Amino acid sequence: MSLVVQKFGGTSVADSDRIRAVADHVARSRRAGDDVVVVVSAMGKTTDELVRLAAEVSFTQPTREVDMLLSAGERITMALLCMALADLEVTAQSFTGSQAGIITDNVHTRAKIIEIRAERLLATLASGGVPVVAGFQGVSTDRNITTLGRGGSDTTAVALAATLHADVCEIYTDVSGVYSADPRIVPEARKLARVSYDEMLEIAATGGRVLSLRSVEFARNHHVPLHVRSSFTWEPGTWVDKEDETMEQAVVTAITHDATEAKVTVAGLPDRPGVAARLFRALADRNVSVDMIVQNASLDGTTAISFTVPGFDLAVSTEVSEALIPELGATGVTSDSNVARVSLVGAGMKTHPGVTALTFETLAKEGINIEMISTSTIRISCVVRADCAETAVRVLHTAFDLANPS
Amino acid sequence: MSLVVQKFGGTSVADSDRIRAVADHVARSRRAGDDVVVVVSAMGKTTDELVRLAAEVSFTQPTREVDMLLSAGERITMALLCMALADLEVTAQSFTGSQAGIITDNVHTRAKIIEIRAERLLATLASGGVPVVAGFQGVSTDRNITTLGRGGSDTTAVALAATLHADVCEIYTDVSGVYSADPRIVPEARKLARVSYDEMLEIAATGGRVLSLRSVEFARNHHVPLHVRSSFTWEPGTWVDKEDETMEQAVVTAITHDATEAKVTVAGLPDRPGVAARLFRALADRNVSVDMIVQNASLDGTTAISFTVPGFDLAVSTEVSEALIPELGATGVTSDSNVARVSLVGAGMKTHPGVTALTFETLAKEGINIEMISTSTIRISCVVRADCAETAVRVLHTAFDLANPS
Repeated sequence: MSLVVQKFGGTSVADSDRIRAVADHVARSRRAGDDVVVVVSAMGKTTDELVRLAAEVSFTQPTREVDMLLSAGERITMALLCMALADLEVTAQSFTGSQAGIITDNVHTRAKIIEIRAERLLATLASGGVPVVAGFQGVSTDRNITTLGRGGSDTTAVALAATLHADVCEIYTDVSGVYSADPRIVPEARKLARVSYDEMLEIAATGGRVLSLRSVEFARNHHVPLHVRSSFTWEPGTWVDKEDETMEQAVVTAITHDATEAKVTVAGLPDRPGVAARLFRALADRNVSVDMIVQNASLDGTTAISFTVPGFDLAVSTEVSEALIPELGATGVTSDSNVARVSLVGAGMKTHPGVTALTFETLAKEGINIEMISTSTIRISCVVRADCAETAVRVLHTAFDLANPS
Repeated sequence: MSLVVQKFGGTSVADSDRIRAVADHVARSRRAGDDVVVVVSAMGKTTDELVRLAAEVSFTQPTREVDMLLSAGERITMALLCMALADLEVTAQSFTGSQAGIITDNVHTRAKIIEIRAERLLATLASGGVPVVAGFQGVSTDRNITTLGRGGSDTTAVALAATLHADVCEIYTDVSGVYSADPRIVPEARKLARVSYDEMLEIAATGGRVLSLRSVEFARNHHVPLHVRSSFTWEPGTWVDKEDETMEQAVVTAITHDATEAKVTVAGLPDRPGVAARLFRALADRNVSVDMIVQNASLDGTTAISFTVPGFDLAVSTEVSEALIPELGATGVTSDSNVARVSLVGAGMKTHPGVTALTFETLAKEGINIEMISTSTIRISCVVRADCAETAVRVLHTAFDLANPS
């Protein structure tokens, strides 16, 4: 008998039929002998609808009240799911973040979990029941309702799995797992049976939207095995677990892409210490999260710094950079939102030289220019023209033979 | 400076425009120097929509989960109202039933308030803020979320007003007060400036739907003055307060009617002790709430008992009565849903004989037959044919000259 945390996202509980299908699956897991803790998100478009109402009602939206508003969505889902489980003769009890003992800090709309006091969940499990917990929400040490920000329900599920020492945290979604590339771009992309936490982190950070970065980090730090799978087909999906060092590793596991970034270049900078520090401190002070940074020295003693930021941060990044032109002695700032980042991720890269060379050769053969490059031990990212991105993903997927299991 | 509890029902907060209008009114009350505590219901049809979803998802609806589901509605309203107040530079904080310290018993879907621990509300008031409290909900001594049943938001408002020793509890709704008769039936009906708690109880019990019986009882027991008024015109409405014994009282204050009752007659009963007891015990055991009871002895030693019940209890009442025919030795049971009850309410009746006589004369003159009669010290109720009810209300309103202030 295992203890399983099952998390169902918004599309998995979008309407009455989907909620009944989820109840059916939970009931089958329970009858198979597993203890189950369920975590749910708000139904489909509920959160969007609440955000729209808030915008209609108010310009100034105090974050405490935003959290109160948004936390209503999961309550609806979990009550309905418990009712559907009652029809199937499964005893279930819903718990708000507060009732589930999910204690957070006091930072509204992006609170961090400090502690989980799981006594009520444990009591429900001990009596043979299924606790159904509201994802995305908690209660602060000041006794206010908080929400955990983007990907919050995944974080709730992983944190509960860690606290309860669950055997697995199953993340149900509308895709059937993690693929070697986006199947809409590469039809022969392969569903990966297993990836390591580190690979999943790089995949999540570079465009694979199936899991939030934060929940994968949490799972890695607390050794919670994740199983990402579909609530539409219910077939086995992708396991995310610690690196299996007994096996030969694929050099490249997945090709990801992200067309939401934009590039800013500050040109004609004097080539002296402190220039980059001044620029990136100013950006950090405006909460801009900079991704890639490249600096080239030129022969005339000046230098250019290019960096990428999320598209929605482009305007403020340009503004900050332009304001610094006099102070830094730069000659100008250019911005470009017409770029995309293509990344290769694979734990085997660490021990296989030559990946970078094959990547560059493959792109060059297609006439695709690489504008920026950054690497980690298990990732290579290239910034290219946006309209070349899909071709780049396809040719790299073929070059590294990702359609066939290694 | 007064402390005012303002309660806004579903129609008063039905959409973004209404919520902003309510915020505007609260802000004006605050600027006029009053301390304000707000209680809100769910927006317009939200509760109906949640009930519909529950019916789609499940046959067996555990009441604990029904309460979890329904309590989501007020959270949405109160968060939105606090946001709208922020736009008007009024500091407001929303509180769930649990956060407001509304402690109830453990009876889901119709919980009773045991205690209010108002520390957080008092702290918000002390700092100059407006607490906005979810009506209709509380937290049980078992730490589960409960709802208070029909009229629950009114009860929340009155209970808070009692606990906080508020100067008045204002109940905002979509009508402008309590009228001498339903203005849709009697166009010249007059808005009453003031009624006593006892009159309001009789009016609420006999068809005046503007306040729930329970909230009026609570207000009477705790001496909370109520002011029922419109959130559409904002004009002064009707005060409900203790009887003013220094003033001459109107003999009749209002004429009410209720067409939702039905009549059951058990005929040919032996005229001996215990027969009625057996019948009404059996009905009570099925949770039927019997309203009027009339028993006539006949010359042949048998008797007939007629009683009225809410229309939705007619089927079970008939079934219970028929099952008792052999045991009681009755000759038969007839039922009739085509009846209506017309009532006259007035504190002055206590000291003015002749009201009954004028009532009977007025109805007789119109050829309206009275099928059953019941009276209290300040009320006379007559059961008539359903299609005579509106005429009865009109002629009685004229006979007692209710269109003119007494």
